[in-house]
Parts: sequence; structure tokens; C-alpha cells
Amino acid sequence: MKIELKADERLDHLLAQQLRIVQSPSVFSFSLDAVLLANFCRIPYRKGKIMDLCSGNGVIPLLLSSKTESLIDALEIQPRLAEMATRSIAYNDLAQQITMYEGDLKEASGRFEKETYAYVTVNPPYFSTPPAGEKNKNEHYTIARHEVLCTLEDVVKTASELTKQNGKVGMVHRPERLLEIIDLMRRYRLEPKRIQWVHPTQMKPANTILIEAIKDGKPGVVYEPPIFVHEDGGYTAQIRGWLYGED
Amino acid sequence: MKIELKADERLDHLLAQQLRIVQSPSVFSFSLDAVLLANFCRIPYRKGKIMDLCSGNGVIPLLLSSKTESLIDALEIQPRLAEMATRSIAYNDLAQQITMYEGDLKEASGRFEKETYAYVTVNPPYFSTPPAGEKNKNEHYTIARHEVLCTLEDVVKTASELTKQNGKVGMVHRPERLLEIIDLMRRYRLEPKRIQWVHPTQMKPANTILIEAIKDGKPGVVYEPPIFVHEDGGYTAQIRGWLYGED
Repeated sequence: MKIELKADERLDHLLAQQLRIVQSPSVFSFSLDAVLLANFCRIPYRKGKIMDLCSGNGVIPLLLSSKTESLIDALEIQPRLAEMATRSIAYNDLAQQITMYEGDLKEASGRFEKETYAYVTVNPPYFSTPPAGEKNKNEHYTIARHEVLCTLEDVVKTASELTKQNGKVGMVHRPERLLEIIDLMRRYRLEPKRIQWVHPTQMKPANTILIEAIKDGKPGVVYEPPIFVHEDGGYTAQIRGWLYGED
Repeated sequence: MKIELKADERLDHLLAQQLRIVQSPSVFSFSLDAVLLANFCRIPYRKGKIMDLCSGNGVIPLLLSSKTESLIDALEIQPRLAEMATRSIAYNDLAQQITMYEGDLKEASGRFEKETYAYVTVNPPYFSTPPAGEKNKNEHYTIARHEVLCTLEDVVKTASELTKQNGKVGMVHRPERLLEIIDLMRRYRLEPKRIQWVHPTQMKPANTILIEAIKDGKPGVVYEPPIFVHEDGGYTAQIRGWLYGED
């Protein structure tokens, strides 16, 4: 299949899934965090729809498509990224399963039917909006990384509104926001049920967290075995498996 | 040095510290959790006094004595355990450094001077008081394990009252109580600063947490590299080092 690539775009591999994804260094490329989230989430195999918020160039829906037959909706506010995602979806012949929407998540619960999704995934901006001087100068990066267009509360609130009762929300974020995330989730009826820590190496403090919550779930968290990203200068076997499909 | 051992008491080794401790299966023997807590806590080497609450047979003060020159007070509500601790302290010739008190922690902040301790350690009962039928039939064990004589809130409140400003509190507990512990700590001016997860093996969810808080500290938690207790049917090298002094 042919694909039109613009200016500095590349057609990168998602090797483990045997998919391709349109990326561009001038916009925002997917990070390992998206791969971690896609592997962490216990999405339904067939029953119930999935929504990915803050979807960027659609990496999470693409990754999830290899482990579910469920329909996947995705929402991204940046037109350039949403359009790249749409081309990637078409190139991989996944338009029957994945639909990318361009729009603001703060308006999502008016646009999509409330309480209908079995699973909502989100890899939101990690940083509270800092003083203007500190913001990344590339606007695409700033929007992806900083809470410019949506706050953590907007994300949690919208995720909860879209999720049906006993449906799940999966999020990747930074450990320093964990307590705030837990407070917000509980305020919006999402009860944290699984938390997993990701450490850069076995000897370093965690720099990433994965959280799965159940809407109106009972309290009680399982703290999963930790993930280590690097060892001996390379990726660990677990990470290589997720990135490249190696055993 | 001679020591009087009663009935079923033993004089066990704390090998890594080259100390001995009086224990009895009919009362309550120290657990690995005490060893984990003693190694986790960043106690002062010389400046400031230390208090150990829910001290049992005094294992934590004994372990801490090998890494600090500070004076250590300890409080235990069960007379039999406090008395065993006093004999262990004397046997190890540590009566100049460690003082064991028998009494109720709920009355501790009237008995000891408030806001004077640089570090308060505590390995409290883990379980909310269950229906009577579920309680361990041995009263010594029940008191050590269940919140019969003090609640988690009593523990956190007392620890905070005894700790001076910018002093620290170190606690070991079960992961399922973490969110409650964090809520209580913050209510009593203790800001969690370091959290470490302990997993039975590298592939299992955490079953123990270590938390260090600073009184009136600024928010921001470091999630330390995890601890694994077992591998290949034995203790990991890290645990062997703490238990037996092996490298």
C-alpha cells in the first residue's frame, strides 16, 4: 500500500506488532511510555469499545489493535498529529477497527456517548503548566508534554465520564504526580486497582508509573512486579520483547 | 555475660550485627519486616534521639544500634516483651544507648517530651481489628498483629507528636494500607518522602512497603528501587547481607 509522507515524516516500524507508524521529529514521536501503557492495560479481547485520549499520532490504538478485536476510538487535539494517525491507521489497514477523532477532550463527554467505553487509555501531558520561559519552544511538544490545553483533572474527569460502570481506565504518568492522580481518580469514581512502577534500571528510583482503575470499583490496589527498562547498557529482555517482539 | 532465659525462650543471633536477642515462640519473634525497616531508615548517625514505637522484643533498637551513636528510646505495651527486650539490651551491653519503656503509645506524647525525636521508627500491627473469631488465639500475637490496643491513626498521630520539625518517621506496613497511611500521615503533618516496595520474588506483587516521612516536609516522593526477598528458593543477596552480614 502507498502512503503520502510529508516533509520530514518517516514511516517507522512498530516491530513487535508488525505495523508501521507515521512519525516526524518536528511534531512528536511516540515514547516508550506508550508501549508500556499498551502492554499494561488489561483491555477486553472482544467485548466493549476502547477509547484512547491524548492519542497523539495514534501509537496506542495501533499497539492495542494487535491484542483486541474490540473497536477503538481515539481523540487528539492537534490536527497535524490526528491526521498523521489517520494515515497510519489506513496504511495498516485498520480503519475498520480504529477511528481517530480530532478534538478537545474537555468536550469529549458531549461528543461521545457517556459511560459506554469498557476501557479508556490515556498518556496525558505530564507536567503542570510551567512559567512560559520554561516551556518547550516547539508548540507541538509543549502541548504534548505540558498541561496547556488540558489539566490532569480534565483528563481524569473525561476518562471517568466516558467509562461505563465497572469499566477500566489505564494511565501512564510520572511518579511525582501519583498521589494527585489517586485523589483525582477517587473524586471521579475511579478506584485504583493496579499500580506498576517502572525503573530506568534495577538500582534507580522509579521514573514512570502505570495505573489501572475501575469505575465504581472496590478499594484495594495490587502493586505489580516492577519493570526495569535498561540493564548492561541496553534494554532488558522484557522491554526488547515489547519493542521488537523478541522472546 | 550471663542471661536468665525463661521457659521456652531462646537467645537468637542477629548475625549481621553480631548481637543476640531473647525470643520465644510463645510470645512473638521478630520478622524480616523489622530487618527491612532498620535498613531502610535514614537515621542520624549522632545528632538527635531516636524512638521506636510498638517495639516488641526490641529488635529494631538493637539493629539500629549498629548504625548510629544516637540514644534510642523504645516503647512496648506488652510487659513480657518489654522485659525480654530489656534483658537483650543488657546482654548486648547496650543499656547506655537503648532504653526500653513499657507502656501505651496512646499516652506516649504525655510521657515523653513532644517534638524532640529526630527519628521515630514503627512496625505497627498490620490488620484492622477483625471479628473476634478470626483473631489469633494467642493474645501476644493478636496484639502484635491486629489493631486491638492501637489503631493506625494512633500510631501515626503519636509518631508525629514525638517527632521534631523536619525530623523523620519510618514505617513498615502492608501495601493494602498505603493510601490510608498517606492520608493519615498528611493529616498529622508527616509528608511521605521515600517509599520502597518489597516483593516476595521479582515476579510477584509487593507484599510489604517501607515509608519515610518528614514532619512538615515539602510534598514529593522518591520511589526507591524495589527489594526482592527470594530468588531460586533462597534469600536474595541483598537480604542475606542484611540478615547474615554476607556480601
